[in-house]
Amino acid sequence: MPLSSIGDTQIDVDAALRRLGDRVHHTPLLHSRLLDREVGARLWLKAENFQRAGSFKARGAFNAALVGVEAGDPRGLLAISSGNHGQAVALAAAELGLPAVVVMSEGSSPVKIAAIRGYRAEVVTQGVTMSNREQIATELAAARGLRVVHPHDDPHVISGQATVGCELAAQLGSLGIEAPLVLVPLGGGGLLSGTVIALKRLLPRARVVGVEPAASNDGALSLASGSRVTLSEAPRTVADGAATMRLGAICWEIIKAEVEEIVTVSDRQIGAASWWLWTRCKLVVEPTGALGVAAALAAVGSLASLRDSDPSTYPSEIVCVVSGGNCLPSQISDLVGSSLEEPEEV
Amino acid sequence: MPLSSIGDTQIDVDAALRRLGDRVHHTPLLHSRLLDREVGARLWLKAENFQRAGSFKARGAFNAALVGVEAGDPRGLLAISSGNHGQAVALAAAELGLPAVVVMSEGSSPVKIAAIRGYRAEVVTQGVTMSNREQIATELAAARGLRVVHPHDDPHVISGQATVGCELAAQLGSLGIEAPLVLVPLGGGGLLSGTVIALKRLLPRARVVGVEPAASNDGALSLASGSRVTLSEAPRTVADGAATMRLGAICWEIIKAEVEEIVTVSDRQIGAASWWLWTRCKLVVEPTGALGVAAALAAVGSLASLRDSDPSTYPSEIVCVVSGGNCLPSQISDLVGSSLEEPEEV
Repeated sequence: MPLSSIGDTQIDVDAALRRLGDRVHHTPLLHSRLLDREVGARLWLKAENFQRAGSFKARGAFNAALVGVEAGDPRGLLAISSGNHGQAVALAAAELGLPAVVVMSEGSSPVKIAAIRGYRAEVVTQGVTMSNREQIATELAAARGLRVVHPHDDPHVISGQATVGCELAAQLGSLGIEAPLVLVPLGGGGLLSGTVIALKRLLPRARVVGVEPAASNDGALSLASGSRVTLSEAPRTVADGAATMRLGAICWEIIKAEVEEIVTVSDRQIGAASWWLWTRCKLVVEPTGALGVAAALAAVGSLASLRDSDPSTYPSEIVCVVSGGNCLPSQISDLVGSSLEEPEEV
Repeated sequence: MPLSSIGDTQIDVDAALRRLGDRVHHTPLLHSRLLDREVGARLWLKAENFQRAGSFKARGAFNAALVGVEAGDPRGLLAISSGNHGQAVALAAAELGLPAVVVMSEGSSPVKIAAIRGYRAEVVTQGVTMSNREQIATELAAARGLRVVHPHDDPHVISGQATVGCELAAQLGSLGIEAPLVLVPLGGGGLLSGTVIALKRLLPRARVVGVEPAASNDGALSLASGSRVTLSEAPRTVADGAATMRLGAICWEIIKAEVEEIVTVSDRQIGAASWWLWTRCKLVVEPTGALGVAAALAAVGSLASLRDSDPSTYPSEIVCVVSGGNCLPSQISDLVGSSLEEPEEV
């Protein structure tokens, strides 16, 4: 598949790599012997919780922002986001000397608003709801001459997220790992579609699987039915970064063509994975970032059937993309509980 | 100073390095640009929170345990500890096939007891208090034929902890850093005395400073007075791993000879450091592990006078030994609060 022919869009990963340079961190690939033993394979964590602004979103936001700067576009940036994308766009704008506006629903967490204002962006919440926020954002962008940066359905954003896959391919290559199973959190689809594009080209024997919260299984339903499914109501899950009602249109075209499997995990399984990441790996990971580890620990989907039917085909190397770490201690405390003993759910 | 002549003890760092091999992790030296900006120097974190059993204590425990095994000593191990040393001894014993008993005060946190039992050690608490626990442990060791592994005042334990300094010297050397300021948490003195022995030999221009909680300032008082000070009552501080009443005798001899400065930080400063480590670095660090970062952020002791009197002499490279990460989310939640905005205390 020529990467330049997805719909009418241009996914240019090489340009994104060059453009991003050292503006984003090359995040480490971490390893835990304890998790290995628990999962029955070597488990690697691609630690995007260490990324700038706390999640992989910095990659796409910087790439999209820099494309505008390179083209001489003087406009400020507007993001619709209640979370990591807003922080990432605010950081990119601040660093590039552009104004930024983030449109968030009324009643958004004061903590998240404070985090975005910490990057000096203007936050607009008045009268904004989940259902009217796209319209309000479009009107505001037109009225104030701002450029909208979509959280996932934008080829420059997807190209930026694809650099996770490029780094991963190089890191795995240096370890001699050629055929890993790669578990990627799935919300709107920017991270999954970018990662699969990069890995299919650079590490063609990698198997890339998306992981969704069970309550937000639009991706799994879409892949099963062959057409993009929209959930009837907003999902409720601890993995707030993946609580989407449907995949982005461009993301879906890539995922449909390139991703073989999407699995789901329960909120309890996400809690068990968070427990492991906290108590054993000493990593601050937000619930959405724990989706891959939850799938590995619970051996969901084809992992379970592989293990049960023919252990010899069980993957020996599993990579979990740990997508972000923006959460409060109290959130993790609620999720993990107050025990250092293993949770029953694992 | 010949390392073999401290009192009648033998501190043999090279033997410890060889003995430990890959039994303990070579922990990474992490770096955060945000912390750099806050501190006004390049700040490095020696991440012993990623160490086996969650703290540097695994180094000393494994070294002491292996010395016994090499000498053909078949005895099981006994540790007095309410925390990390107990877990470390339990892990080392389990891995080497030795029984282990950990003596803890009645009323010790069930969470800590569970963690130690998780390594299959026997926990003894009945009738044990802070004041009688050494005596009970000695009697129990005699009655059951167990070998006592002291948490810090044992040359084999100090030699094990010294391997932190060896790794650090190699890591700093590869970065071209020759004269760092190294901030080391100080409780009983095992980590500080081991680290300073290794660094004075391997990186002689390094300046090693101990960091204590203000409520547990026996080390600072001792260095100021020139003789080992015992506090009149048990200190109360969030940094429970450093809540000691006096330094170990062997540790004190080394610290007196080799360490130029010991500084203290308040519990509020420890909370501010925990906030940075959590929200910005995404690291799970227990309060005691945050002591060095607290000192760097607060610019305590000679750091403050250097900065104020002659900024040109302010150190350009600061290393904080992050000693451990064994804590519950709820503890960090209580300490850090529920804000992603910068705490006022920084």
